[in-house]
Amino acid sequence: MARKQIFYTAGPAELYQKFEEYLQEAVDNQLGSISHRSGQFKKIYQHTDEQLRTLLNIPAENAIMFTGSASEIWERIILNCVELESFHLVNGSFSKKFYQYAAALGRHAHKMEKPMGEGFTYGEIEVPEYAELIATTQNETSSGVQMREADIHKLKRSNSDKLIAVDMVSSAPIPDLDFKLVDTAFFSVQKSFGLPAGLGVWIANEACLEKANKLKNEKGLSIGAHHTLPELWSQSKEYQTPATPNVMEIFLLGKVAEDMNKTGIDAIRKETDRKAKLIYNFFENKQGYSVSVQKEALRSRTVAVIDTEAPSSEIINVLKEKNLIVGAGYGPKKLSQIRISNFVANSSEQIELLLAEMDKI
Amino acid sequence: MARKQIFYTAGPAELYQKFEEYLQEAVDNQLGSISHRSGQFKKIYQHTDEQLRTLLNIPAENAIMFTGSASEIWERIILNCVELESFHLVNGSFSKKFYQYAAALGRHAHKMEKPMGEGFTYGEIEVPEYAELIATTQNETSSGVQMREADIHKLKRSNSDKLIAVDMVSSAPIPDLDFKLVDTAFFSVQKSFGLPAGLGVWIANEACLEKANKLKNEKGLSIGAHHTLPELWSQSKEYQTPATPNVMEIFLLGKVAEDMNKTGIDAIRKETDRKAKLIYNFFENKQGYSVSVQKEALRSRTVAVIDTEAPSSEIINVLKEKNLIVGAGYGPKKLSQIRISNFVANSSEQIELLLAEMDKI
Repeated sequence: MARKQIFYTAGPAELYQKFEEYLQEAVDNQLGSISHRSGQFKKIYQHTDEQLRTLLNIPAENAIMFTGSASEIWERIILNCVELESFHLVNGSFSKKFYQYAAALGRHAHKMEKPMGEGFTYGEIEVPEYAELIATTQNETSSGVQMREADIHKLKRSNSDKLIAVDMVSSAPIPDLDFKLVDTAFFSVQKSFGLPAGLGVWIANEACLEKANKLKNEKGLSIGAHHTLPELWSQSKEYQTPATPNVMEIFLLGKVAEDMNKTGIDAIRKETDRKAKLIYNFFENKQGYSVSVQKEALRSRTVAVIDTEAPSSEIINVLKEKNLIVGAGYGPKKLSQIRISNFVANSSEQIELLLAEMDKI
Repeated sequence: MARKQIFYTAGPAELYQKFEEYLQEAVDNQLGSISHRSGQFKKIYQHTDEQLRTLLNIPAENAIMFTGSASEIWERIILNCVELESFHLVNGSFSKKFYQYAAALGRHAHKMEKPMGEGFTYGEIEVPEYAELIATTQNETSSGVQMREADIHKLKRSNSDKLIAVDMVSSAPIPDLDFKLVDTAFFSVQKSFGLPAGLGVWIANEACLEKANKLKNEKGLSIGAHHTLPELWSQSKEYQTPATPNVMEIFLLGKVAEDMNKTGIDAIRKETDRKAKLIYNFFENKQGYSVSVQKEALRSRTVAVIDTEAPSSEIINVLKEKNLIVGAGYGPKKLSQIRISNFVANSSEQIELLLAEMDKI
């Protein structure tokens, strides 16, 4: 069945082109019934692990682990990697939530905060001396601001005694992160991987594991009970999970990552940049609209946030009648912004169609 | 496509008969792409909520909430409902994990423990004075032992100052629990609801919520950050979730629960009892096999555990060649037991087919 609507939303989002084909394969192979302790499941996990490792250039020593969602991983990182103090770069609703999670877990959570639409560059960041972990958000889904990979890498290089965490929820696999520098990163599958929600992916290195073990064994602290890093880690090395995971989604993610590897991540990144340029150029020249993020280099490659003169609901409704689904602004910006996804599943044709229709408004 | 294998495993398990039809409906309606903040999602949540409420006879004031898995809920219950001490009835691997979760979270976790294959009756249980929560496992998936509803209810009545939690992971919707007595209960969808893994369902009453608020606001304790009860609760009352949930599975669960309501829970429970009787009668009379749980009243209605004289792997392999998938014993019982699911999706014909094939062995 042809899809009725095209989704340009920041996630849940447009599904990957071959989603239905792969879902059917999962159904035909009865993957909803197989044991997560079976060799069959281990092979699925291994395949997804290997494809993600290739796609994101993740070293062999890092673990790739699965959770229920990316939000869950915010909590797991704080519980396992922070004893007392964390430091958060906050410039939107999701980076703020990571910060709030740390505070809710009783940590002394420091933050450097910017207004919506602004971002961080390396030079301006002052990291508190006792922060054990620096939490960065590579792509702020709420504001459409990115943090450049080079800035993240410099931040780690000049704070090599601290762990650095990268929220790449709504941008993976686009950012070219150096996982020899990045200690931990995470994403969910309902953004640029074009799958239904229900799976979080957590990448961590041995420094994170050592920290968790130190907190637990040397300090005698609780690192949580469910999905602790040491437990997830040791199971992942056997392509296993501590609890029953979302088997079907792990399979689907492996298939999508495999396809992406066939295309090649460089080509995907270039195409994403090209589409992003199309979108931003269009709105820079379209009356009644402007790109929310001023600094070009800090504009998200995967979620474009556009200020609208007319109430965004009017624009969204006109597009919806044409079965093009665009997101509203986040929170207080609901009526004054639209958000347009530029995920891998949003093809060049889809982006062109949207802009052509918006040109008529 | 006809399913090749029939699963009699304790979960992931045989999928609900109409799973593929409902999955197709979810795909056709693009539920993998819709916003979890949309009215469309709220209607899906509301439908599932209402169908589960009818099916399990859950009062209006209780909340029905969604998590990534049932294991996650073990942790959430301890974090939100126990300040210092919990008490666990342990008679298998899963009830033990609940206990271990409490200990890992730094609680003083008490337990009363029975060997595998034995269960608890009300009269023998002594609840420690200062335990704030009694953790019961209605159906121990590892050992095939159930705790009768009447015993759970009596336990609460005589400990009305304590919260009672019921793990019904591998038995819901079969147990007829009185949710005016049970404070909190939980299950996952890959057991008797016949769906792929990836969703936990948490039912809690206002006493649980009050406890969480007390721990957080009066005592100033951390109740976690992700999926805290107050946050899940307030969102659920609007048919919303704090983080992006597994939208497709919530939809599927609603469809399955609706079908179950059409059949009627009484009829489903009777049919389950009838099939369970078939299974247990068969193995009581079959040479080389015996029912692991001695006390008839404590035998699980949904997961039959059978001791085998021959190594279970041999039996499992013979059946596998006929595309009948039966589970091994759990943990140390792997080779000396088989486990046979008697979930709603395991039709009468399927059970009869399995027993007929086993009769030939």
